[in-house]
Amino acid sequence: MKKVAISIGDLNGVGVEIALLAHDKIKRFCEPLYVIDGKLLFQASKMLGLDIPKDFKTCKVSKNFKIKPGKVSKKSGLYSFKSFKKAIDLAKKDKVDAIVTLPINKEAWNKAGIRYKGHTEVLSDLFKKEAIMMIGCKKLFSLLYTQHIPLKDVSKTVKTKKLYNFFIDIDNSLKTKKIAVLGLNPHAGDGGVIGDEEKKIKKAIKKANKTLKKELFYGPLVPDTAFSPKNIKNLRYLVAIYHDQGLIPVKTLYFKESINVSLNLPIVRTSVDHGTAFDIAYKGKKPSLKSYINAVKEAVKLS
Amino acid sequence: MKKVAISIGDLNGVGVEIALLAHDKIKRFCEPLYVIDGKLLFQASKMLGLDIPKDFKTCKVSKNFKIKPGKVSKKSGLYSFKSFKKAIDLAKKDKVDAIVTLPINKEAWNKAGIRYKGHTEVLSDLFKKEAIMMIGCKKLFSLLYTQHIPLKDVSKTVKTKKLYNFFIDIDNSLKTKKIAVLGLNPHAGDGGVIGDEEKKIKKAIKKANKTLKKELFYGPLVPDTAFSPKNIKNLRYLVAIYHDQGLIPVKTLYFKESINVSLNLPIVRTSVDHGTAFDIAYKGKKPSLKSYINAVKEAVKLS
Repeated sequence: MKKVAISIGDLNGVGVEIALLAHDKIKRFCEPLYVIDGKLLFQASKMLGLDIPKDFKTCKVSKNFKIKPGKVSKKSGLYSFKSFKKAIDLAKKDKVDAIVTLPINKEAWNKAGIRYKGHTEVLSDLFKKEAIMMIGCKKLFSLLYTQHIPLKDVSKTVKTKKLYNFFIDIDNSLKTKKIAVLGLNPHAGDGGVIGDEEKKIKKAIKKANKTLKKELFYGPLVPDTAFSPKNIKNLRYLVAIYHDQGLIPVKTLYFKESINVSLNLPIVRTSVDHGTAFDIAYKGKKPSLKSYINAVKEAVKLS
Repeated sequence: MKKVAISIGDLNGVGVEIALLAHDKIKRFCEPLYVIDGKLLFQASKMLGLDIPKDFKTCKVSKNFKIKPGKVSKKSGLYSFKSFKKAIDLAKKDKVDAIVTLPINKEAWNKAGIRYKGHTEVLSDLFKKEAIMMIGCKKLFSLLYTQHIPLKDVSKTVKTKKLYNFFIDIDNSLKTKKIAVLGLNPHAGDGGVIGDEEKKIKKAIKKANKTLKKELFYGPLVPDTAFSPKNIKNLRYLVAIYHDQGLIPVKTLYFKESINVSLNLPIVRTSVDHGTAFDIAYKGKKPSLKSYINAVKEAVKLS
């Protein structure tokens, strides 16, 4: 059975509750190691009114602090960062086969002096490799060519060579037969009438397929009709040129099931695709476990 | 009962079949006038193997030509343009209360020397007013702030004054209580970290609401989560800053039901939201009537 380190996320949020509630389910297909200290787990379980399962394996991370449900706090932010770093470390040392991350709070990271925007940036920095962000569920995964950049800067990044490298990187970390690529402009440029970045996309697809000696990538597709009921049947993996192009369809159709996967790294990392949900943390409001369970499943599959 | 002129679209496509098949349904709530000559209707009905209902009212448009199913043709392109122009004329002269347009083929228009990109451009030019394109169905309508322009040019168009005018124009042609406005950037800019056009959007919303003396517009919303099952319940009308932002969710969720409405004009015009479907024209493959029937209903409602 694959070993999976679970970084606990911001303890003032819903992460630890999700971990406790889903434990019986995920232990059927992996051996989870929760990256949280026993004392803090004990504190959280008391506050949540949840038992700690006897096979809930934890590990040392950092010193104890007081959990404050729903609060942005420096201590909780710092702890979530340390839990994440420890999980990465376990994977690097091959003590686990993959890591799954529970949500952190960006503001809390900021308060704790951590200058990263999120998990993915930490990974890219640590491994000196651009992590590829893939979001979705097994029905539809979007691979983001650009992530958190202003929309006005997207066009400039569309270059044949850069796209080509992105395609080759995808093939290195994903085993599948067909990956659709979206166009950038309305109607995918309508033959060059509404923008011409599609020419570069087309060239990069051709070049990548030639190198890979298979017809892996196809497109560019017209973005707005790619997800119609008729067309979506044929989609499973999809390259989106910009953030919202890939995430609007995924979140519109599969909001609760969606997960976040970091590809192109020496370790396997998946994550829930939701935040800390401070508004419902420690209120007995049973957060959805779907995204988390899917994330653990995908981590096992990829490792 | 409201009178509605139906421009017949490209006769080599599915338009006339849709008109014949849906006649019994739409005559229950309007008095349709089909902008097609009797001779051509007779030719099409023979080829389709469909009866012409005795109350199927037509009018003179232009001279006869040979229908060629699924073919891009100069003659058919020109006829579709003339049918559209005639329909507009009927509306301008108050002979009808609204017009509904069946799909034309852009390439055929091009072949016929017609330099417009589509219906909406003709209307804007004819009435010397920027038509506002609204696409969707009664569950979700997207109003497009920009239409067929390259994605790289979208940011430049985001100006407080221009947005403000757009909002005021919307209020002039649409009666509703709440209209959401999307942000432009990932996470709606995340407080200015990923682009700052959202500031201008916010300012324009505030200004428009002040002028209108009501809280009609709100936002900017984070684009990728705006359509999650929880959030979409509260959406009905939506301002999208660019084409695909508004159309991806509409076409993902409501492809068959969707229609196209031209607002901000002195006449009411709605349209099906699909093309000529040359691949299935005159093959007895029963095209979907949903979009057309919804378009006629909305035309009656708006007039």
